[in-house]
Amino acid sequence: MEKPSIPKGTRDFGPAQMAKRNYILINIKQIFQKYGFAPLETPTMENLSVLTGKYGDEGDQLIFKVLNSGDFLSKTNSEDIEKGSKKLIRKISEKGLRYDLTVPFARYVVMNQNEISFPFKRFQIQPVWRADRPQKGRYREFYQCDIDVVGTNSLLCESEIITVINEVFDALKLKDYSIKINNRKILTGMVETIGAKGLEDDFCVAIDKLDKIGIEKVFEELKTRGFSDKQVELIEPILSLTGTNSEIIEKLTSFLSNSKIGSEGVAEIKSIIEVSSIYSNEDLKVDFDPTLARGLSYYTGTIFEVKPTSVKMGSICGGGRYDDLTGIFGLKDVSGVGISFGVDRIFDVLESLNLFPSNIGEQVKVLVANFGEESLTASIKLLQKIRASGVSAEIYPDNVKLKKQLSYANKKSITNIVLIGTEELKSDRYTLKNMISGNQESMDLNQILDNLTNN
Amino acid sequence: MEKPSIPKGTRDFGPAQMAKRNYILINIKQIFQKYGFAPLETPTMENLSVLTGKYGDEGDQLIFKVLNSGDFLSKTNSEDIEKGSKKLIRKISEKGLRYDLTVPFARYVVMNQNEISFPFKRFQIQPVWRADRPQKGRYREFYQCDIDVVGTNSLLCESEIITVINEVFDALKLKDYSIKINNRKILTGMVETIGAKGLEDDFCVAIDKLDKIGIEKVFEELKTRGFSDKQVELIEPILSLTGTNSEIIEKLTSFLSNSKIGSEGVAEIKSIIEVSSIYSNEDLKVDFDPTLARGLSYYTGTIFEVKPTSVKMGSICGGGRYDDLTGIFGLKDVSGVGISFGVDRIFDVLESLNLFPSNIGEQVKVLVANFGEESLTASIKLLQKIRASGVSAEIYPDNVKLKKQLSYANKKSITNIVLIGTEELKSDRYTLKNMISGNQESMDLNQILDNLTNN
Repeated sequence: MEKPSIPKGTRDFGPAQMAKRNYILINIKQIFQKYGFAPLETPTMENLSVLTGKYGDEGDQLIFKVLNSGDFLSKTNSEDIEKGSKKLIRKISEKGLRYDLTVPFARYVVMNQNEISFPFKRFQIQPVWRADRPQKGRYREFYQCDIDVVGTNSLLCESEIITVINEVFDALKLKDYSIKINNRKILTGMVETIGAKGLEDDFCVAIDKLDKIGIEKVFEELKTRGFSDKQVELIEPILSLTGTNSEIIEKLTSFLSNSKIGSEGVAEIKSIIEVSSIYSNEDLKVDFDPTLARGLSYYTGTIFEVKPTSVKMGSICGGGRYDDLTGIFGLKDVSGVGISFGVDRIFDVLESLNLFPSNIGEQVKVLVANFGEESLTASIKLLQKIRASGVSAEIYPDNVKLKKQLSYANKKSITNIVLIGTEELKSDRYTLKNMISGNQESMDLNQILDNLTNN
Repeated sequence: MEKPSIPKGTRDFGPAQMAKRNYILINIKQIFQKYGFAPLETPTMENLSVLTGKYGDEGDQLIFKVLNSGDFLSKTNSEDIEKGSKKLIRKISEKGLRYDLTVPFARYVVMNQNEISFPFKRFQIQPVWRADRPQKGRYREFYQCDIDVVGTNSLLCESEIITVINEVFDALKLKDYSIKINNRKILTGMVETIGAKGLEDDFCVAIDKLDKIGIEKVFEELKTRGFSDKQVELIEPILSLTGTNSEIIEKLTSFLSNSKIGSEGVAEIKSIIEVSSIYSNEDLKVDFDPTLARGLSYYTGTIFEVKPTSVKMGSICGGGRYDDLTGIFGLKDVSGVGISFGVDRIFDVLESLNLFPSNIGEQVKVLVANFGEESLTASIKLLQKIRASGVSAEIYPDNVKLKKQLSYANKKSITNIVLIGTEELKSDRYTLKNMISGNQESMDLNQILDNLTNN
């Protein structure tokens, strides 16, 4: 018999990984809900007409396509097949797996525009699939975790998003991270100011590589992309700016004073940072970085990026404001802003910094040992009282040697064992054994419950 | 532009549905965890070699197949294509969507047999996909919600499962339901007793239709399936048994006294019911029904089925004991027992009996009205204090007419509005307006927080 396996780039999440993932997701969800975001889930399969053309040519190829069910060849002829895989797909597949949460969200908003009360704040935590070449830290199935507000231009949303990011990483005890913000309007303003209108996309793509290739290489790339030496010289001091948020705002205000759109971008950043500081009185993290670009995308205003600072890792959260997301499905003028948390990367960061709670493996708190028929009724009654007090507990299902039962508890990180011996049966007492200290003590029911619920 | 749509048989779950689904799932999960079940999640895509051959021919056809990525035709030749869809699939598709949670669970256990500490208790709540013809109440994507214990024969597991079922429906306030149990060994014993050995499968398939077609038609079917008139006559009184659990046990004990396996089955049922009553002192639901069959399946011992009694609906929970689930992947002799809750059907039952909590739509408790610049700082500071106290709150992002803000609150079922007027700004007071009663009252910060956290 063939050994069973799972598709490459996919993973099973056993109890230990689930406990850690749930720790992240429960913390995130609580904060989302506290901030008024409502849950949404969309189907795993979307029509290919919804998915294709939204992620560029490369993206289209990375969408997993689902074969039409039944006799999928019935609608094809030999000509279709001769044309090759790419053309044939349209005839034999109508559905694909969700590639991100943004396009399905836009589709949902357009389909339900008459029922939704705008501004619409939603969160969505679901897996997505990409037929990428699997490699370390890159999977073909992974979770995305998004919040978006659509139907308002208010910059309060940006400030709330910055506050949410701060709260999430506070809750997860991650201290070493940076939140960078910028505004697409500022990038457009820069290009305008140095007289390179029309090269906005090239500018974004080039400076997006700053972290990876360094500033000299970015200058080279700008030149090969059509920027003149003079233009690169003009932008150089701006791409190397350092200082506090206020200092950078001041320099940009002056640099972009002749660009209407650029000035608008700086004014937005200024307002967002000011209002964010009202949201959280002290040590709010947010750094204005005018070189942040976030590649080519549908963003039109503010952009966000969060990176850990003490672990080498890409961004763990990112997003921005878009003016026309739902336009792809025919609904114009719905501005929105959103971010996505990278759950898998956050998992890896917490793991490598040892930030998961130490008792996270302890999913069951008590094992009631099984000593067979004679004590079974007393054992079950006690077990149910422990569970009724809200404590997770189990009884070992078989009457085997205690050593085996203790070893089971040990492997499952169960800290407390209840033993009910013959003598104890008579006196309504129980022995509570702590697996870590090795201590054991005779107790009555109330003492047992007190002990388990208070520790 | 084409109107966007979703694939037939799939659904979006907007905030209102999600609130109800989460209510069900959170209740179920809490109980699973209290009983010591640990979470597991497996990938959406499984290798077709894992999936096919496990669900019968019809099942195989209902598996959604995923096209190999890239040039999927490259491994095919014209001969493959001439052979038609069924043969071609093997060449162009290697992966399928999860069809249930049981086969992936068995695959996981076999792949991780050296790390798992048996007995292994896991729960799994994930969607599955079936290319069924969509119809009312039958979807192509739906959630399953399973618990299983593998690696022990102990009947304590059966009693715990019955107790879990009772607790789940108690928690969901559903009173009108029945839990039926039977044992495959009893069915085998019946066939043996009436001298029809070899016809066990036919017997199960026929009596499985009892509810649908009635006893006369079942007798007819038994006869067309090879049972003699005499044999049907012998089994007739057993298929019409009524009475208390003890009465039915007594009658079966006598009827099956010459069948070793049958007697074993009755003894198991007896023990399970006795021990279950220790688990929950009072009104535990469980009915022994010797006609329960649960069709053809891998069950070898106890079988369970739960149905609502005041709504016309199929089973909302079912399962049983299997002796060789992991055998399909080469790991022999791992007995297990498990059940699956039908989340979609439970949803429909609670909906039609009006059993969801009345405040379930109230996902955000407070809206802080937006009166613009002047009161913005005070509004945000109050908002953050409300959130810090654990109450879900939002501020209307734009400074629009109050009427529009109230209408937004109304649509989102937000009950409380905080208003901060000019006078109140000076005196650090706020107006709290209740949207249901229409009452509004001037309060200071502590009164606001008291009011929101206590109601």
